[in-house]
Amino acid sequence: MEGKTVYYSQVVMSNLMLPHQANVKGNVHGGEIMKMMDSTAGVVAHRHSRANVVTARVDEMEFHLPIHIGNFVTCHGKLVFVGSSSMEILVTVSVEDLAKNAPPKTALTAYFTLVALDENGKPLKVAPLELVNEEERRLFEDGMRRYQAYKQHRKN
Amino acid sequence: MEGKTVYYSQVVMSNLMLPHQANVKGNVHGGEIMKMMDSTAGVVAHRHSRANVVTARVDEMEFHLPIHIGNFVTCHGKLVFVGSSSMEILVTVSVEDLAKNAPPKTALTAYFTLVALDENGKPLKVAPLELVNEEERRLFEDGMRRYQAYKQHRKN
Amino acid sequence: MEGKTVYYSQVVMSNLMLPHQANVKGNVHGGEIMKMMDSTAGVVAHRHSRANVVTARVDEMEFHLPIHIGNFVTCHGKLVFVGSSSMEILVTVSVEDLAKNAPPKTALTAYFTLVALDENGKPLKVAPLELVNEEERRLFEDGMRRYQAYKQHRKN
Amino acid sequence: MEGKTVYYSQVVMSNLMLPHQANVKGNVHGGEIMKMMDSTAGVVAHRHSRANVVTARVDEMEFHLPIHIGNFVTCHGKLVFVGSSSMEILVTVSVEDLAKNAPPKTALTAYFTLVALDENGKPLKVAPLELVNEEERRLFEDGMRRYQAYKQHRKN
Amino acid sequence: MEGKTVYYSQVVMSNLMLPHQANVKGNVHGGEIMKMMDSTAGVVAHRHSRANVVTARVDEMEFHLPIHIGNFVTCHGKLVFVGSSSMEILVTVSVEDLAKNAPPKTALTAYFTLVALDENGKPLKVAPLELVNEEERRLFEDGMRRYQAYKQHRKN
Amino acid sequence: MEGKTVYYSQVVMSNLMLPHQANVKGNVHGGEIMKMMDSTAGVVAHRHSRANVVTARVDEMEFHLPIHIGNFVTCHGKLVFVGSSSMEILVTVSVEDLAKNAPPKTALTAYFTLVALDENGKPLKVAPLELVNEEERRLFEDGMRRYQAYKQHRKN
Repeated sequence: MEGKTVYYSQVVMSNLMLPHQANVKGNVHGGEIMKMMDSTAGVVAHRHSRANVVTARVDEMEFHLPIHIGNFVTCHGKLVFVGSSSMEILVTVSVEDLAKNAPPKTALTAYFTLVALDENGKPLKVAPLELVNEEERRLFEDGMRRYQAYKQHRKN
Repeated sequence: MEGKTVYYSQVVMSNLMLPHQANVKGNVHGGEIMKMMDSTAGVVAHRHSRANVVTARVDEMEFHLPIHIGNFVTCHGKLVFVGSSSMEILVTVSVEDLAKNAPPKTALTAYFTLVALDENGKPLKVAPLELVNEEERRLFEDGMRRYQAYKQHRKN
Repeated sequence: MEGKTVYYSQVVMSNLMLPHQANVKGNVHGGEIMKMMDSTAGVVAHRHSRANVVTARVDEMEFHLPIHIGNFVTCHGKLVFVGSSSMEILVTVSVEDLAKNAPPKTALTAYFTLVALDENGKPLKVAPLELVNEEERRLFEDGMRRYQAYKQHRKN
Repeated sequence: MEGKTVYYSQVVMSNLMLPHQANVKGNVHGGEIMKMMDSTAGVVAHRHSRANVVTARVDEMEFHLPIHIGNFVTCHGKLVFVGSSSMEILVTVSVEDLAKNAPPKTALTAYFTLVALDENGKPLKVAPLELVNEEERRLFEDGMRRYQAYKQHRKN
Repeated sequence: MEGKTVYYSQVVMSNLMLPHQANVKGNVHGGEIMKMMDSTAGVVAHRHSRANVVTARVDEMEFHLPIHIGNFVTCHGKLVFVGSSSMEILVTVSVEDLAKNAPPKTALTAYFTLVALDENGKPLKVAPLELVNEEERRLFEDGMRRYQAYKQHRKN
Repeated sequence: MEGKTVYYSQVVMSNLMLPHQANVKGNVHGGEIMKMMDSTAGVVAHRHSRANVVTARVDEMEFHLPIHIGNFVTCHGKLVFVGSSSMEILVTVSVEDLAKNAPPKTALTAYFTLVALDENGKPLKVAPLELVNEEERRLFEDGMRRYQAYKQHRKN
């Protein structure tokens, strides 16, 4: 199968945060952001595999900043690692305060692992990831380390 | 007041269409798309004015293609005309079928006019639009024509 | 095909505006109102054609008043013009402040054009509009003018 | 305090049922209809009292017909009985199948009792109900019976 | 058919109340609670009958306490009476203020009657209710009284 | 500060999965489950600290089973580790197919770390965790290891 680049499937998903997405304290519900991140990862994996995909794992989700109603939130999703049928996607969430002329800030990051499935729900082999620069190679190696650590962890 | 470019405030807002956004026939509810377009126009106007903005008018909203659940929808919003306190934004909605490796298609376009308001709800003068190429100048002239036709229409 | 009156298909749709429909400023999101207007137009067109209908165009949507959470909002939809398979519906939105004993005020108006489709998604001929008074005849002529202007505009 | 008629506060609230309102079987979730009925009763009580109101009791809610996605649902709410600060409202839900040229059918009825509250959350005396015909007098007497039976029941 | 106990089908359903569930006054919309109660009753009836169920009737719904955004709300549902194909479920809603170390309080109670249906939508005979203590027998008798009063009422 | 047990703050949150929570393939959207898990963890942390809490981190979220519309989903949340102001909560999601008489199955697990904040948004010292059995001590040690590994990771 021919490789596909990170660029081929990367996604930007953006939304204005509305009051119906608030948590009890009036900020944006963390779960709403997770839902948007999961959709972002799903689109990346769908584009790379052109197949059905399901979320199998989320790791190292870190909240750096609270997100407020009225903020403009952007999820960037890009592949970092591709196994046989699994795809690890780094989702970075940045947040912009529209009242200010200031660059967006990173509010959240996480790694989502999705698996491509065939029509019978069995894992489906996906295209390898074609790496085109040093940054992508470094992220891929980190991803492979997480993948192997997780496989080892499951065996025990 | 110093002018601001079209580039300064333009916005891309994207979303995966989910089943809760369906209309009775199972396609995406037109109103859901209008809501997303209205938010897009609001972010553009908010960025250009850094003030409260309200939608005053929507014109020439044309639906070219149905949008399906599972489609990846992108709203592009950019200023075409700026009056004293009113801002006209062209919102273009494109739609991508994630199962296919094909470029997104334009599904909808519309012109949204928003007005900046001060703290007392009175119209607020906004920065002029700095035009940097022929395309922007042409669109601006069209916008001014719509603006004047509408003013004339209101007088009658 | 036998004509049907404006009265036959006209619709009144009403709702209490709830907090989950708020925009960032705490008023009702314009997109929520557009969604309700689109549904209203859809019911009118559905009743007139007893067929599948899709929104093709929205024109001259004008916001006259902000709508607040807790307001009682009513959409009136009625046919103004019927072409071969297209139906133009005037949707008028009025708003009532329940804390006051005062008549509702018009907050929004717009023209929605919907098209009836057969089972293959092809335009379907609909019943003509039976006009029964001067007001309806005047609105019909205005609608025909918009229809022809739009057809002309598309040709160019 | 001057009496107000049933007509003064009666409400019609209508909506097209959309897929996001479905229950597990794909019909409209009963709870969605109850929510719409509760809002309808709230608007009636709000109009009659021009005060804050809360739902205190719901009785004899009977489901006669299932409601389907795509149905046009109308809630009619009208006062049947007014006590000192409590108001009993009969809410009737009718349902129209838009694909058919047939009159709407009654799908649900229930009695909602709401109480008007002053700024400290204490019951507030509301205007008496001005009855203008036999039907209203008969319903009022039935309502008074339910009211007294309930008061008796609470004592025991 | 073998009887099933009350314990077999009883359900606890809990949720944190979020801002999108607010009514106009900022408390939780009564309709949101009714929807949660209806789902609770549906799960009880589904478990008892392992069949399709529909809500037929709601009685004596009494609101004792307002429910606030941020409250932790728990619905307890348990069968009190089973007829041939109808099942009456007592749903009790308790509410906990998470800021305080205090036991939950009862905010609402109601009786939901659901009916099991076969594949053709006809009433389906369900398992009898196996009563194991005095409390359950007392509630069953009350339920039977309501059931017979209602049947009598329908005849007239 | 006096310690509090795991039992003191543990939470069970349950819900019937409805069609509006579906993803593109018609199963329950992973993000909906994450949102429910985040609320569960929030209630646990709120009860333990009786203070404002924010989600800081999610780890090792593993999806074992797809969740279907109509499933009855239960989130169990319990504290496994408490640092100075941070609380790590194990959230286990189990899923029951209501059409079958079978025990619920584990569909998802994850560790949520929340931090208690004072009124100025500064970390607030919370009560220590009082461990009462071997299982709790073992989980606490695992939690402490993750806590220290993460602290080390942040230093680098």
